Amino acid sequence: MSTALVAELYGQIDALPIIDIHTHVDWKRPSARHIGDLLSYHYYTELIHSAEWQPGEAPTERFPYHDPQALARTILSKLHLIDNTVQYDWWTTILREFLGLGPAEWAPENWQDLFERSARVMGHPDWPKEVVARSQIERVFMTNEYDEDLTGLDEGLYVPCLRTEPFVVNLDRAEVRERMARFLGRPIRGPKDVCEALAKAFTRFMEHGMGYAALSAPANLRTFAVPEEEAERLLRRLCEQGSWDAEERATWAAWAIARVCDACRVHGKPFHLMIGVERGAYAHGVPSGMDLFDSVNSLSGYGYLWNAYPDVRFPVSVLADTTGLELVASAWVRHNVYPSGHWWYANQPTDIARELRRRLDVVPRNKVLGYYSDAYYLEFILPKFRMYKFELASVLAERIERSLIHPNMEVWTLDDTLDLAKEILIDNPMRILGIPGG
Amino acid sequence: MSTALVAELYGQIDALPIIDIHTHVDWKRPSARHIGDLLSYHYYTELIHSAEWQPGEAPTERFPYHDPQALARTILSKLHLIDNTVQYDWWTTILREFLGLGPAEWAPENWQDLFERSARVMGHPDWPKEVVARSQIERVFMTNEYDEDLTGLDEGLYVPCLRTEPFVVNLDRAEVRERMARFLGRPIRGPKDVCEALAKAFTRFMEHGMGYAALSAPANLRTFAVPEEEAERLLRRLCEQGSWDAEERATWAAWAIARVCDACRVHGKPFHLMIGVERGAYAHGVPSGMDLFDSVNSLSGYGYLWNAYPDVRFPVSVLADTTGLELVASAWVRHNVYPSGHWWYANQPTDIARELRRRLDVVPRNKVLGYYSDAYYLEFILPKFRMYKFELASVLAERIERSLIHPNMEVWTLDDTLDLAKEILIDNPMRILGIPGG
Amino acid sequence: MSTALVAELYGQIDALPIIDIHTHVDWKRPSARHIGDLLSYHYYTELIHSAEWQPGEAPTERFPYHDPQALARTILSKLHLIDNTVQYDWWTTILREFLGLGPAEWAPENWQDLFERSARVMGHPDWPKEVVARSQIERVFMTNEYDEDLTGLDEGLYVPCLRTEPFVVNLDRAEVRERMARFLGRPIRGPKDVCEALAKAFTRFMEHGMGYAALSAPANLRTFAVPEEEAERLLRRLCEQGSWDAEERATWAAWAIARVCDACRVHGKPFHLMIGVERGAYAHGVPSGMDLFDSVNSLSGYGYLWNAYPDVRFPVSVLADTTGLELVASAWVRHNVYPSGHWWYANQPTDIARELRRRLDVVPRNKVLGYYSDAYYLEFILPKFRMYKFELASVLAERIERSLIHPNMEVWTLDDTLDLAKEILIDNPMRILGIPGG
Repeated sequence: MSTALVAELYGQIDALPIIDIHTHVDWKRPSARHIGDLLSYHYYTELIHSAEWQPGEAPTERFPYHDPQALARTILSKLHLIDNTVQYDWWTTILREFLGLGPAEWAPENWQDLFERSARVMGHPDWPKEVVARSQIERVFMTNEYDEDLTGLDEGLYVPCLRTEPFVVNLDRAEVRERMARFLGRPIRGPKDVCEALAKAFTRFMEHGMGYAALSAPANLRTFAVPEEEAERLLRRLCEQGSWDAEERATWAAWAIARVCDACRVHGKPFHLMIGVERGAYAHGVPSGMDLFDSVNSLSGYGYLWNAYPDVRFPVSVLADTTGLELVASAWVRHNVYPSGHWWYANQPTDIARELRRRLDVVPRNKVLGYYSDAYYLEFILPKFRMYKFELASVLAERIERSLIHPNMEVWTLDDTLDLAKEILIDNPMRILGIPGG
Repeated sequence: MSTALVAELYGQIDALPIIDIHTHVDWKRPSARHIGDLLSYHYYTELIHSAEWQPGEAPTERFPYHDPQALARTILSKLHLIDNTVQYDWWTTILREFLGLGPAEWAPENWQDLFERSARVMGHPDWPKEVVARSQIERVFMTNEYDEDLTGLDEGLYVPCLRTEPFVVNLDRAEVRERMARFLGRPIRGPKDVCEALAKAFTRFMEHGMGYAALSAPANLRTFAVPEEEAERLLRRLCEQGSWDAEERATWAAWAIARVCDACRVHGKPFHLMIGVERGAYAHGVPSGMDLFDSVNSLSGYGYLWNAYPDVRFPVSVLADTTGLELVASAWVRHNVYPSGHWWYANQPTDIARELRRRLDVVPRNKVLGYYSDAYYLEFILPKFRMYKFELASVLAERIERSLIHPNMEVWTLDDTLDLAKEILIDNPMRILGIPGG
Repeated sequence: MSTALVAELYGQIDALPIIDIHTHVDWKRPSARHIGDLLSYHYYTELIHSAEWQPGEAPTERFPYHDPQALARTILSKLHLIDNTVQYDWWTTILREFLGLGPAEWAPENWQDLFERSARVMGHPDWPKEVVARSQIERVFMTNEYDEDLTGLDEGLYVPCLRTEPFVVNLDRAEVRERMARFLGRPIRGPKDVCEALAKAFTRFMEHGMGYAALSAPANLRTFAVPEEEAERLLRRLCEQGSWDAEERATWAAWAIARVCDACRVHGKPFHLMIGVERGAYAHGVPSGMDLFDSVNSLSGYGYLWNAYPDVRFPVSVLADTTGLELVASAWVRHNVYPSGHWWYANQPTDIARELRRRLDVVPRNKVLGYYSDAYYLEFILPKFRMYKFELASVLAERIERSLIHPNMEVWTLDDTLDLAKEILIDNPMRILGIPGG
């Protein structure tokens, strides 16, 4: 493949603004204050923890999250152990683009200078705006708790999305029910209470330009019709006995996920599913570094839901590479399933490129939702999008080159491929997610 | 990779005639009559249905199959939504190769001209012969019902293959048993009746140059020894109660699939397995656009069968990409398993290329069954084979280039790779499938 | 990709010595005596058996293992059926590198000349040393039975590794318990006897520079806490009744695998897991050619073990391609899991390249264990390592080329990539496996 063509395509794709359809950015503190914040990102702590384990020392001792300077010093001194990774490349890109520091201009030994410089630049009150402007970010979808106060939200930039795990998969925890009771203003005793809490959350989110409802689900979740009385019985049992067995949890989840769909239907909002995470699989992990996935994961359990709610749009991300083609086939055939981005362990060049090729070869072009950053701070949006855009440029360059000699293809021009890039990065997110003001 | 080398290799591979070892062509009406027939192919209806869903309108209303002109108009006006897909490329190839129309010479607005022109050309009585000649098609394997009348079949071109789903997986439907009873001339009451119906079908097919028995099977089908009495009991129960539970269906399938093997053994015919389809998964789909697959799919359930019938050849296609290497390993080690083509959702460039590389690197060269079109009309055979042949040319060009610098490889010449291409596209199908007159 | 760059990188990587971290080499007869030994390797017998089955003839009749000349003649006459395979390339490489014979200098017809020449060269008493020197082999890890007498082992070259299947998965066979009883000097009646046999084996292996404990495990093995009394009960039941059901076997395996971990902990040795083989799946296979794998295979069953033994290192190989990214994610997050080599059916260019890219992109560089040959004779180490090193060179050339135009990456020089190659091929094996004298 011609690297000149890839570079040219990349340059043009890079010029597109960013619609980031899934992040964990906190709109009240959207950017990092210094490199200590940046390096507290679980990718750095978990990789270094994995690269060099300290027996007898808890991850939270080793990584002093409360002391950003000490944290930065610790991480920096070990970064060479992961300098082969794409996560390392995100870090150097942030240094280069936001702090103006090339590879020769910083070193672990000078961590203190680096820290101070970063605090000076990033401490400026306009810094978040600066990051947004330099990264050409136009929309940042967030992941918000149902009871979060959204007053004062800049709805022209931030789009709140409703995290529904408390309703669907975590309700058997007493503290989850108590918090929901406080939100609702009365105890959670029956399915109606849960529905009302959900309705109240939707109403609030709608007032602030709601994006969509979101759920990150374990592998092999099954959906099926559950009668109201069964949900009634389950919740009564939970209140009396304090716990559910696996079957009961699964039945509740099947009931509750359909209630989220009901609400999405009422409000005309999509339901973004992120499928396949195993929470807490690694007992010795750093915070946010304990989750893994199971390669044995089927989407067939969602068949009932997708059939029962033809009028609800379901953007879907999968964590397991083994579900990649199953998602592509679902998006190819099911009108309400949209392949969305490249999530977590699948968010690296090899699997991005493979899924991208598949999606662009057989899914209708107006259904592909290109990418999201999953970032916690605005600074990470740019390097992550660049990683994706480079793979996109490579896949599109390959498309152009193949089209010149392929017996079936009309010639794809640079403009043709740029139209396609714009469609999956900008137009589809705007239309499919119904971006307010979009 | 040198695109010149790919193009050169492609040119030479394209010159090979086509042995199409699996289609759904109807030998009594093998070619399309106009673009309405072409565009009724489920790939177009399902993709456009997926790209732009019409709430409240049933797919069969939206796509007026009974009115080919209206159907053509409807599909054409939406084709731009899928112009990124390989299926779109099949369409433009048919226009170019069979109707002589380049991309600038047709447009959705002129659908009527296009329709009339197509009807004029394709309505000629010699049109099927013309398609066969222009595409260099030498053999077309079909998928036939056991009770189809094959009288008059041109056995020099068409090879009938016996669809065995009615015997193995659908016998619990009353209408299936009734149709089989009519074929046999007496009710289906016991396993012996089923065996006799199967024997009668084999005899008939053998009189017309039978290719093989075929089964498209759901994911995770298991085979195991089932005593005759158990089959007896199951069928009695079915006749009395009208249905089977999941376990009973599975036991019947295990018994019946072995009876198909018995018949294959008697007649020296292969048993082509197409593994992993989930029928009717998508409730809102267009006709033939409701089936999907499950990525959790194991071939281990076929172990009993493949071991029990060492003298029966089993060409095998898999729908799930996750079964690709498992099939390769089976073909590598099991003498009676042959990897066959690239099926349906796996029939796109990314997965064709991957499986092709694996097969050519570790499966004996005389065991690889290259490709089939799965087409309903003769016109689709050419563009589908071209899609495959281009991937084959790419993989072989890579092989040549690697061989020039690889420390283990002898140099592969153009002729070496063309020999390999011919072997998997022509020689292996002829020998493994025992092509009559081949 | 520039083939000149691949060739240059390959040349430099090829110059690195070989640390082969998993083989089946027999230190008492480490090299082949003639081509009969070489061609008795199951890859050749199984591929030719698969390519051309002889009905009614048992594999052991067809392949006269007891008569090396007849075996060589038989295999050679059929090698053309597999001349597309990487296994064929191993063979031609051995002829070229060790017998000085290019492709034009031998032919199946001249099998006798070839056999005699090989016997002359390879029969020299210094031949093993010669192979080691020419291949630049520095360490050969072996797979040894617990009761093997290691007296006289050249510990500077050979590293004994303890095969633990008899303790974990095969103990329900009477002959396994009897052999273990002979080793221990008293009957195996309780868990303590098993632990003592294991302890005795570890002690012996430690005296000879033990590498690690090793287990090749079936798909979907599960680990969990099993009380001593339960193991007690299981073994009593086994002694009384002679067999276990599937659940009992699984429970024993879970108990026993933890005991191996206990011993690894005590001696500070790693536990190398090779996950996913289905033994005896193919009933008609040649010796060592009857095993396959199941694509439905989860690593989640190892979660308990990896969490319970944070201080034990677990190099892990997977047989199923479907577990590739799950292993990568585990190695990325879990501090004590190390991706190790490319095993058996996954040991071919397509899957090596994919996993290598993933590992180098997201796993800390100091955790990747590059490659092992799995060889039975020293002669196969060189061609197998070359196969891997060529893929490594290709992946690293791609890395250099991408780094020149990638918006996130610093430029990777030739030296940078060679450092990385050396780290995964030499430094990591030495450090992670604690190579004696390393």
